[in-house]
Amino acid sequence: MAAQEAQGLANRAGVQDAVHWIDAHVARLGQEDASIADAAGRVLCQDVLAGLDLPPFDRAAVAGIAVRADETVGASAYNPLLFRLAPGAGDAGDLPPGGAVRLDAGDRLPRGADAIVPLDHVGSDEAGACAVIEPVIAGNEVERVGSQGARGSTLVRAWRRLSPADIGVLAAAGHARVGVVRRPRVRCVTHGDTIEAGSLQLSAAAVGGTSAPMLRALVERDGGILVEGRRFESDREPLLDALEAPGADIVLLVGGAGRGSDGRAPMVLSEAGELAIDGVALRPGAATRIGRTRAGVPVFLLPGAPAACLWAYEFFAGRAIRRLGGRSPALPFPSRRMTASRKIVSEIGMTEVVPVRCTNQDGAEPMVSFAGAGLRAVTEADGFVVVPEGSEGYQTGSTLTVHLYDEQARAQS
Amino acid sequence: MAAQEAQGLANRAGVQDAVHWIDAHVARLGQEDASIADAAGRVLCQDVLAGLDLPPFDRAAVAGIAVRADETVGASAYNPLLFRLAPGAGDAGDLPPGGAVRLDAGDRLPRGADAIVPLDHVGSDEAGACAVIEPVIAGNEVERVGSQGARGSTLVRAWRRLSPADIGVLAAAGHARVGVVRRPRVRCVTHGDTIEAGSLQLSAAAVGGTSAPMLRALVERDGGILVEGRRFESDREPLLDALEAPGADIVLLVGGAGRGSDGRAPMVLSEAGELAIDGVALRPGAATRIGRTRAGVPVFLLPGAPAACLWAYEFFAGRAIRRLGGRSPALPFPSRRMTASRKIVSEIGMTEVVPVRCTNQDGAEPMVSFAGAGLRAVTEADGFVVVPEGSEGYQTGSTLTVHLYDEQARAQS
Repeated sequence: MAAQEAQGLANRAGVQDAVHWIDAHVARLGQEDASIADAAGRVLCQDVLAGLDLPPFDRAAVAGIAVRADETVGASAYNPLLFRLAPGAGDAGDLPPGGAVRLDAGDRLPRGADAIVPLDHVGSDEAGACAVIEPVIAGNEVERVGSQGARGSTLVRAWRRLSPADIGVLAAAGHARVGVVRRPRVRCVTHGDTIEAGSLQLSAAAVGGTSAPMLRALVERDGGILVEGRRFESDREPLLDALEAPGADIVLLVGGAGRGSDGRAPMVLSEAGELAIDGVALRPGAATRIGRTRAGVPVFLLPGAPAACLWAYEFFAGRAIRRLGGRSPALPFPSRRMTASRKIVSEIGMTEVVPVRCTNQDGAEPMVSFAGAGLRAVTEADGFVVVPEGSEGYQTGSTLTVHLYDEQARAQS
Repeated sequence: MAAQEAQGLANRAGVQDAVHWIDAHVARLGQEDASIADAAGRVLCQDVLAGLDLPPFDRAAVAGIAVRADETVGASAYNPLLFRLAPGAGDAGDLPPGGAVRLDAGDRLPRGADAIVPLDHVGSDEAGACAVIEPVIAGNEVERVGSQGARGSTLVRAWRRLSPADIGVLAAAGHARVGVVRRPRVRCVTHGDTIEAGSLQLSAAAVGGTSAPMLRALVERDGGILVEGRRFESDREPLLDALEAPGADIVLLVGGAGRGSDGRAPMVLSEAGELAIDGVALRPGAATRIGRTRAGVPVFLLPGAPAACLWAYEFFAGRAIRRLGGRSPALPFPSRRMTASRKIVSEIGMTEVVPVRCTNQDGAEPMVSFAGAGLRAVTEADGFVVVPEGSEGYQTGSTLTVHLYDEQARAQS
């Protein structure tokens, strides 16, 4: 009898081993069709080509008047040249000699015009004419047909997550629908125990279900859809069904993974396919198990304690969901090189997540740990540092990479 | 007749003037009630207090066995001490003397237990006992009742945008619903012109409506709801109705703002209330007008050219929507201090948005401008630099602030 044989977790994997297993076994999902109006944030499945020249005609880059450039030669503040304003020349009309047409940025140049005089350099009088006080050269402030992309050129590359501006580019090029990676369907199974807490009024939702609304928010942040929430009671049959029932691309099983001396969930996962990772050297989150069903559906057994559940999700289950959906698998937080303004201590052999607060533009100091503050360590931190397994931490003054929570989460004061 | 009198835009405001007008006239909306399951990303309206102690009982911080610490004195690898595993002691049971209970992280300690021996330091035999090979002190790996927050203490502060972890904290504290800032209702009115483009098949949606799907994505990114999309034809009555009809917290009117020599939209806005900002020294986006109806609804006339529309939105209309919704009004991109790896040139007197590409960890170089590439300058850039009105740009090697597009938008390879 040795400690090494005990309880499974002695075989726990390094964080990188678990990450490699996920990357080797979880692949991007297939394609579905989406209206561009609904495609922001989705991941494009193939290169999108320009269906027409961009812009489709010569157009004004700024508000001004469209003129023939050679008619502006000699204009100055001392010698303003008058141009008759041609009313309603419209988008495809002709510019009469000596005339000008008032355009907004984006408006089509009338035939014959080859330059825009910006409004700043234009005066007007009451008789429907305007004065140009500076000469312009041909092409001045004109967006030439096709200059932003010839018909048939690549507009937006495959596997890009579409931003609002990308949507604008697709719309401008005449695309109404695009092929995007299907959203991962996530089945989330939470432990159904109700907990008696003396005189406190606790519902199962308040304690046993703490992680369920948090996980829903995390899954949706990462582009997944929670298709089904279940509760379970550690019995073999409902557990097997939760893992094997069709309709999910990934299964998260929260709490009760090896609960008490029972440990039925890991055993049932072995039975349903493969328990590949049996504990991970991550703190919080060591009691994470990872595997897959015989059908190839990845399964994550997440610890029930909220902070451990959060980090098991962020490092592993979330990575799988982000991969399934075609997103970057990395932790979805901006990172920045900063300086430790206090010493950060970590245990050798465990990858540790340390909540930090920014002390000034470049300084970060550790806050009370997850063990001490639980999830509140996250809600009160500006970000976190990941101290790898081989490190004892960081000395004051050393450089480290801080993952920052959404800077926009800082409230409007 | 002088250029300064011409066409309105000669009176254009500085970007900061426009920002100050928005901040002075656009206030946070009122409160509504939301289920915590739907509250991620919403802005909390008041401090939320702990409804119970957190945690509500002493619980295990890591997976292990719960023991009496004083019974572990003297344990070592050479002198393993045996503890009988008490099966099913349950959450509120008693720990018999000399016994231990197997717990997962987050499980309640049985009465009498005061420490957790992590699984790493535990061995088991076949007879329902386990061996402890290292002594622990009282409180080891125990989360004490109330240690993360006493009942009645502030859990999450007002005006914070709720993260998934915040949702977990609220759930753990027994909150099922919270008061959040109402979502801004946005009416978006786009110019209804269809554009003839020679032999190219262009629908109104493809060109006149380029900005509509982009704006929807932007509005949703900033927490607004597009309650109504309309098209207009520059006639006074439908324009007045678009501005004044009830049901919107903000109105965006895209394109046709001063179209051709007409300029009816700014005049109608004056008639409906106030045209406060008549052009802004922003490139792209100079033809932005800002005002409000007599009912106090802010109105933004956005240029029709897609890149100009985008930046007029990001700097002004988006700021107003973010303020209405209680979010940080700043540009919603992480920013980083970087070094100009090529010279960045800008016109004095205009705030200019310059798309940049990251050349290495700290370097940023300008890309082809919006005038040259339109929206594609955004879709191909890693971020952008805002060169203020008083600056001619940046010399190679100088330090500048780069706003970075979502690092997660970089595709999975």
